[in-house]
Amino acid sequence: MTIRNIYLEKADLKTAQKITLEKFENYYSKTEMTASENALGRILAEPVYARLSSPLYHVSAMDGIALDSKTTFGASKTEPKRFEPGKNAFFVNTGEPVPEGTDSVVIIEKVNFTDDNSVEIDEALYPWQNIRKTGEDIVATEMIFSSHHKISPQDICALLSGGVTKIKTIKKPVIAVIPTGNELISADTDEKDIKPGAVIESNSSMLAAFIEKSGCEFIKYEPVSDDPEILGNLLDKISKDENTDIILTIGGSSAGSKDYTKKAIEKNGEVFIHGIAVMPGKPAVAGSINSKPVFGIPGYPVSAAIIFETIILPLIISFLKDEDTAQESVEVYPVRNITSKLGLEEFVRVKIGKVNNRFLAAPLSGGAGAITSVTEADAVIRIPSESEGITDKATVSAGLLRRKNLIEKTLLMVGSHDNTIDILSDLMAEKRQRISSTHVGSMGGITALKKGNAHLAGIHLLDTKTGKYNDSYIEKYLSDKKLKIVHLVSRYQGLITAKNNPLKITGLKDLEGTGLRFVNRQKGSGTRILTDFECMKNKINRSDIKGFNVEEFTHMSTAVSVKSGAADAGMGIMAAAKALDLNFVPVTREDYEIIIPIEFIDTEPVQILLEIINSDEFKEKVMNSGGYEIDRTGKTRTFPFY
Amino acid sequence: MTIRNIYLEKADLKTAQKITLEKFENYYSKTEMTASENALGRILAEPVYARLSSPLYHVSAMDGIALDSKTTFGASKTEPKRFEPGKNAFFVNTGEPVPEGTDSVVIIEKVNFTDDNSVEIDEALYPWQNIRKTGEDIVATEMIFSSHHKISPQDICALLSGGVTKIKTIKKPVIAVIPTGNELISADTDEKDIKPGAVIESNSSMLAAFIEKSGCEFIKYEPVSDDPEILGNLLDKISKDENTDIILTIGGSSAGSKDYTKKAIEKNGEVFIHGIAVMPGKPAVAGSINSKPVFGIPGYPVSAAIIFETIILPLIISFLKDEDTAQESVEVYPVRNITSKLGLEEFVRVKIGKVNNRFLAAPLSGGAGAITSVTEADAVIRIPSESEGITDKATVSAGLLRRKNLIEKTLLMVGSHDNTIDILSDLMAEKRQRISSTHVGSMGGITALKKGNAHLAGIHLLDTKTGKYNDSYIEKYLSDKKLKIVHLVSRYQGLITAKNNPLKITGLKDLEGTGLRFVNRQKGSGTRILTDFECMKNKINRSDIKGFNVEEFTHMSTAVSVKSGAADAGMGIMAAAKALDLNFVPVTREDYEIIIPIEFIDTEPVQILLEIINSDEFKEKVMNSGGYEIDRTGKTRTFPFY
Repeated sequence: MTIRNIYLEKADLKTAQKITLEKFENYYSKTEMTASENALGRILAEPVYARLSSPLYHVSAMDGIALDSKTTFGASKTEPKRFEPGKNAFFVNTGEPVPEGTDSVVIIEKVNFTDDNSVEIDEALYPWQNIRKTGEDIVATEMIFSSHHKISPQDICALLSGGVTKIKTIKKPVIAVIPTGNELISADTDEKDIKPGAVIESNSSMLAAFIEKSGCEFIKYEPVSDDPEILGNLLDKISKDENTDIILTIGGSSAGSKDYTKKAIEKNGEVFIHGIAVMPGKPAVAGSINSKPVFGIPGYPVSAAIIFETIILPLIISFLKDEDTAQESVEVYPVRNITSKLGLEEFVRVKIGKVNNRFLAAPLSGGAGAITSVTEADAVIRIPSESEGITDKATVSAGLLRRKNLIEKTLLMVGSHDNTIDILSDLMAEKRQRISSTHVGSMGGITALKKGNAHLAGIHLLDTKTGKYNDSYIEKYLSDKKLKIVHLVSRYQGLITAKNNPLKITGLKDLEGTGLRFVNRQKGSGTRILTDFECMKNKINRSDIKGFNVEEFTHMSTAVSVKSGAADAGMGIMAAAKALDLNFVPVTREDYEIIIPIEFIDTEPVQILLEIINSDEFKEKVMNSGGYEIDRTGKTRTFPFY
Repeated sequence: MTIRNIYLEKADLKTAQKITLEKFENYYSKTEMTASENALGRILAEPVYARLSSPLYHVSAMDGIALDSKTTFGASKTEPKRFEPGKNAFFVNTGEPVPEGTDSVVIIEKVNFTDDNSVEIDEALYPWQNIRKTGEDIVATEMIFSSHHKISPQDICALLSGGVTKIKTIKKPVIAVIPTGNELISADTDEKDIKPGAVIESNSSMLAAFIEKSGCEFIKYEPVSDDPEILGNLLDKISKDENTDIILTIGGSSAGSKDYTKKAIEKNGEVFIHGIAVMPGKPAVAGSINSKPVFGIPGYPVSAAIIFETIILPLIISFLKDEDTAQESVEVYPVRNITSKLGLEEFVRVKIGKVNNRFLAAPLSGGAGAITSVTEADAVIRIPSESEGITDKATVSAGLLRRKNLIEKTLLMVGSHDNTIDILSDLMAEKRQRISSTHVGSMGGITALKKGNAHLAGIHLLDTKTGKYNDSYIEKYLSDKKLKIVHLVSRYQGLITAKNNPLKITGLKDLEGTGLRFVNRQKGSGTRILTDFECMKNKINRSDIKGFNVEEFTHMSTAVSVKSGAADAGMGIMAAAKALDLNFVPVTREDYEIIIPIEFIDTEPVQILLEIINSDEFKEKVMNSGGYEIDRTGKTRTFPFY
């Protein structure tokens, strides 16, 4: 049996951050000279003093005529003073130096031109009126910027105006990124060449982008195979390279039988943390080789991102002397209770929408491996390790991942999943609008509207008594609301089965008692209600269908279950079957509608949404994806029904 | 006489923005393929669909043992089930595919290892427990991102995980930047080679940095001389270059006699705006040559920055289909009334500090030419063209230029100017703290504390009756406060005169009635009070001193007035004279103290400030700058005095 590592320690996050910062407190001190004009975003290693004053001379602040102010005393409307250009009055443009002997400028609009080429002014000037004096903006020898200041575009202007063309900046730390693991393949691998167990190497590019964004440079290494010897030698070699400042390995940082990172660091240096009480992100390693910081970053992308943000980024900021880049936070209302494991600080990725002036947070599903739980997230809620979770009764602070203005104008759509929502959301994006959809099933959508937790709900709910869609549910659950109901699409639901339907499945009946494996949808989804209705109608005993309790949350994941062989059949829309090149056995045609509370109808994003739904472009794209009818698309109804 | 341009139109800002966006609505449509791994910050030109699912196979979500779930049914603490590794139980690491015939994983911590190399489990598994199914994160064919999405580091991971290595992105627009003007010189020009009227060319580098920051590329041209022919030909040539998408000229956009931009555009194309009712920024030109957008950017750096942000940036964003980058705003209390010109939308640059939970805004002085009014600004308050200004009675919205967290932890110091504040602020920066100082004179500092508008005040106020510093003012104006008073430095005040004192000035008396030109400090400043006191003491008639009404706001600008020959003498600190290599005639030694309301004493930034004031490093730097004594530096007193 393979020998397995055991977690040595499990530091809480704060301790891990503190230890890391302290260990390398005096480690980084590289600086370099940078041309001011190329210094955008760079950070000063020392204060900058002006070499020259700005303006360099006394210059005119306006287009006008330069005069000696004392020659203007007494000028008035009734007794204007007359001057002779070229002799005692001098045309100057903005920014031009004023001639010797003059100390004020009258603006051109206030000059009367006389017939004999003289000029008259009818107001006295005071000394230095309309003149920018030498050094008015910047005085030579003065400090322009203090140490650790980060250079903005305007700052470049100030540096050059002060005659400073080179500045001493903190050198960008260089970070080596080394993916590890025999299973890694390149993202451009042809599908037919992919062997079971292969994993696309995507973390090093993500980390490289994080590194670039943080103001550092990166060196990406080719993946290293699972061999502690090879990894150890490489780490030792890089640790001696004075052009690399931090080393990150990816994967192999846990306690599995192939997790060699800790060992490789230990052999060549020192490990001071193995395991951090944060989720996702737990299996991280921190250490040093030849005094150089070396980190083992977990192989799960969400874990990798969180360890980067919580451990590596603060270290980088301390090296760069950069500003605190802590995310801005907003107070949000969780749309449901969120449980958390005691003893672990949990990072819950949430979507946020602003409805009725409240920020609502819907947690995204998916574990440490689900990168989409980060890419779709608008914010992160941290649940402290001593908490068992948060409730939907109180607000909680969420660190924003996107700009607040963007979130504020996002339409929050909650409810049933349908592939045409992607088309909608893409067409919205082209109109500079943003729609954020959360798939919690049709009943979830109704509940969200009832609670005021969404702008829109997408539903397809079969009334099992009447065989009609949606109306009875709206009447029952949203009776106190005023609504517009917009028909999005009609679509075919049915059984998704393997390509060419090798098991010759013709309907739900064929699954009863046969041992064929079904994959179901979650309770509260319209598709689940349809499945239950069909079983009832056809007198099928649901407990005789194998897998009836295995639940998926979207049509596409149902289709994937069939595609991958995990199930023989699942109820879903034809578009999902078609997308994955699977067989489809139609069961019914149903109405997918969008419900919009009347108070949101006149907002810009909803108006644009309605325009899009009625556009030929939308209808054409829907028809191209197959499995839909659009004869009622865009038709609206009003609730209460009359 | 030179013929001058006349402003053709003066569009208000909203109209100018609208016209510009409409004129070029369908102008830009360049796209390019970009490698996903290099796509950080790039914007999608079309939606991206997954080529592969992620995970690629059913993989273990944990380190553990893969089993067929149905073989575990019935396992319990009392009747554990036993398995034989390699036969019906298989060790798997996180991320590894589960072997054929297994559909669940028991985590390693829950496995009992028996003596005979078997394993036992005492809990049944459910199907797909601890397994990440194919496509659980990303389903092949699914839309990963919609059009116009901006790529983050995490997004790169999602793209690669979905097998997408190349994406169609909006090509970065290329913007030509052409400075104009005979007066322009390079920032590295030697001081002795600078001729009167020369202006350092700094705007093109600032605009290039703005362009880079906005996600575009730039081409910087060498300055073009004031020749409409040369400029016109160059514009025409660049307008035909398909690799340039927008052209910006800098300077020459006003109505002065050398302002040729409008003419040059008009001759080769069309001008549709000349003059925008915004301040700073008024003299801007918008037009097109060969359908290509051409803008005349004003030569004043603040104007240039504002025209870029208000006219060019929105156009770039529309080309790039980028997110709205509108600044975040906070509600601020102006510390004083701010007047504004009717008919012009005014952009007031302000410093912001948070004191007693209110954001306070202090307007920065300096016109369109004062780049430091932008580099020092934390935010911008826009005063609409139909308003004559804002009052300190109500809050107003300010668009932030810096991160809110940074502003929130900034110490706001208001009061008298002293060069050692720069040293303080630099040493604070090294400790990752920020101090923002506004120079409104000692009395201004006292008033700010009285109103609760500052954390600290720096004062040196001579009691003209007793000849003692500060105490009587504190007693008179801050009697209801509890304060700590920290001695910063003792410093020498005196008359600053030209190098080697050619006029042999020995004191204020020498200025009385002699016609020698004095430069004064503003009323309310400690230095002004000192000057008045010295005049009184020496029985000098102030109206007999020429220039007594000419006021400067800092010691350095007083020194500059002398240095540039605008004045023969001014009252100021020795450090300012020394910095500009001028002569100094001592008048008195005075105490510069910092007053801190007791409620701020225990905050982190104030504690760090006090540490710095007491440090040898601070004292050494103070002594090196000359003109100071440090024998009482760091000594604190408490008010009320006992």
